[in-house]
Amino acid sequence: MSDLGFVSPQSLHFAEPLALRSGQQLADYTIVYETYGTLNAERSNAVLVCHALNASHHVAGRYENQARSEGWWNNLVGPGKPLDTDRFFVIGISNPGSCFGSTGPMHPNPASASGRPYGADFPVMTVEDWVDAQARVIDRLGIDTLAGVLGGSLGGMQALAWALRHPTRLRQCIAVATAPNLSAQNIAFNEVARRAIVTDPDFHGGHFYEHGVVPRRGLTVARMIGHITYLSDDAMEAKFGRDLHAAALGYTTRDTEFQIESYLRHQGDKFSEYFDANSYLLITRALDYFDPAREHGGDLTATFAAARCRFQLVSFSTDWRFAPARSREIVKALVDNQLDVSYAEIDAPHGHDAFLLEDPRYHGVLRASFDNLAREVGATGAAP
Amino acid sequence: MSDLGFVSPQSLHFAEPLALRSGQQLADYTIVYETYGTLNAERSNAVLVCHALNASHHVAGRYENQARSEGWWNNLVGPGKPLDTDRFFVIGISNPGSCFGSTGPMHPNPASASGRPYGADFPVMTVEDWVDAQARVIDRLGIDTLAGVLGGSLGGMQALAWALRHPTRLRQCIAVATAPNLSAQNIAFNEVARRAIVTDPDFHGGHFYEHGVVPRRGLTVARMIGHITYLSDDAMEAKFGRDLHAAALGYTTRDTEFQIESYLRHQGDKFSEYFDANSYLLITRALDYFDPAREHGGDLTATFAAARCRFQLVSFSTDWRFAPARSREIVKALVDNQLDVSYAEIDAPHGHDAFLLEDPRYHGVLRASFDNLAREVGATGAAP
Repeated sequence: MSDLGFVSPQSLHFAEPLALRSGQQLADYTIVYETYGTLNAERSNAVLVCHALNASHHVAGRYENQARSEGWWNNLVGPGKPLDTDRFFVIGISNPGSCFGSTGPMHPNPASASGRPYGADFPVMTVEDWVDAQARVIDRLGIDTLAGVLGGSLGGMQALAWALRHPTRLRQCIAVATAPNLSAQNIAFNEVARRAIVTDPDFHGGHFYEHGVVPRRGLTVARMIGHITYLSDDAMEAKFGRDLHAAALGYTTRDTEFQIESYLRHQGDKFSEYFDANSYLLITRALDYFDPAREHGGDLTATFAAARCRFQLVSFSTDWRFAPARSREIVKALVDNQLDVSYAEIDAPHGHDAFLLEDPRYHGVLRASFDNLAREVGATGAAP
Repeated sequence: MSDLGFVSPQSLHFAEPLALRSGQQLADYTIVYETYGTLNAERSNAVLVCHALNASHHVAGRYENQARSEGWWNNLVGPGKPLDTDRFFVIGISNPGSCFGSTGPMHPNPASASGRPYGADFPVMTVEDWVDAQARVIDRLGIDTLAGVLGGSLGGMQALAWALRHPTRLRQCIAVATAPNLSAQNIAFNEVARRAIVTDPDFHGGHFYEHGVVPRRGLTVARMIGHITYLSDDAMEAKFGRDLHAAALGYTTRDTEFQIESYLRHQGDKFSEYFDANSYLLITRALDYFDPAREHGGDLTATFAAARCRFQLVSFSTDWRFAPARSREIVKALVDNQLDVSYAEIDAPHGHDAFLLEDPRYHGVLRASFDNLAREVGATGAAP
């Protein structure tokens, strides 16, 4: 196994508007993406990797002359890695509405004569809209059928939506640590995070760009809430417990005392320096709205009757954000439809975050899944 | 069973300073309290009820000419109720630092010549400090030994602290839905709530009183976070699920869409209208700091060697804030010390909130416990 080395993002411009589920449309937009490995002559070895809230097209490799620029799933994607770029042509795409290059709320709104940024006027995006935007990129790359679509968390929802919206355009859907929809508790956490952002006086109704400020307080709190839900109770206990940090003063309401506090505050502060507040609202809303069974009266089995591809699902025992029970709901619906599904419930202590970590059992499952897929599409590539 | 009818708060002034664990002291303070029932001739039938974050001395009954003024534990305390005021003399005390009458951050700081409110300069209070303040009130009421000390959640921590600090001054400790200390995750949620408050520009470093504003945005977010942790995932799912509220617009990041969102927002807004921001910081810090085993190297068995009274512990199956496992830690330590302990784990769907609700199994346990206690102290009173 080795790393990809230096990679570079590319971009595509789309003049034709993208019709959205909200009834609105996204006009004249740009999509930033990266690819790793080589598309084979049959164009059969492409795997799309869908990103979650705080990620982008930059899945693997590093950028030249840029420290700490490793892709977010670099432990999984690369030469000889479970998703082996010696065999597969891997594609990462930044979703529109996010804040890492593709058209988003910080870009000029074409409806504004003065070129005012979209801000809060960026159209509401859904998981299905993102999948449609991704499909257009795949079209442009001249790929008819993807070998696989892989994603974790919100990325897993996109992988599921691919299987439902473009059933014949993928051979395998690999959905990790995901759910068929958000629970009331999931929505509740999202709403508190959004509330922290929109009530920050620096939010300015979503048009903070023009004021030269960023709702950093709100973003920090939002990230801290999110971060708690990414970790398991046990992992937090094992890592921090009730330990005081080195500079703890003793008996204060003004400063942090416990390590868990300073850790969370650091995570929140860091996040608030680079993430866009409007993107946070848009992406958490896409999570809230995802519910493919809604059009089928809540019947998940009827929903997945549309699917044709093979499925690999993975969940993690201590993930309380998207608990294994949520993956099992999907597995049941797939089995009901006599679809080919493999499901692994990984006993891992790290909570939801586990999907981004290198766990031998987890990566073993994905490696086996991609090995099968490689044989099927004749993507033998270099020996690992 | 009937209600107490109209009740009235009383107050006591303490000129002698209260020494605090922080090394500071609380000088010249007032404590507001209520009592229900009659203290018997032997002064043996008094039960102290300790309050949690969002409660006060007003445990039961109603205030005359005040709508919706029912005490916070009125379903448990009253004539013929599990804690029967025909038998027991029940005492509710507002803790100093809170915001319902006893001296708190909104009151003049005696160290300030101009009578400036304490604000952020109110001394940090601990569970032990509150117990000492309560013991002084009990002294003034001429009571040597309490029949019982009862509390849920943070109130349960106070009941435990009574058993450790004043072991011979109570016959029974009744600690419901509590824990021997906060977990890292518990502290994390508190820290996010505090962060929302202190970063609200209207907080003014805790001296908002002088600015004629209230950090309402921060308090709202804090309460929303807290509220999520009071409810079980299942209870939230059963009550709200993914239902949209009546005025949902469809595809918006600006307004609430789901019922759970508007419910939480309403809870947060309501709370922000009456709760004091500095009290919120102080009380969550008291929760964070409570850890009687810390002085015993984390050994809970060694900690409870100091206890002498009988114990009744209760936990609720779906309480993920203070899970049954946390109560079992206490039970183990009590059993290790051959103390008399009864423990009930109630199968209830409501999460942490269950301790305030009327559940027949839960109330049955407390009724039996108080019936025993009544016999023991000769508090037969009127027939129920």
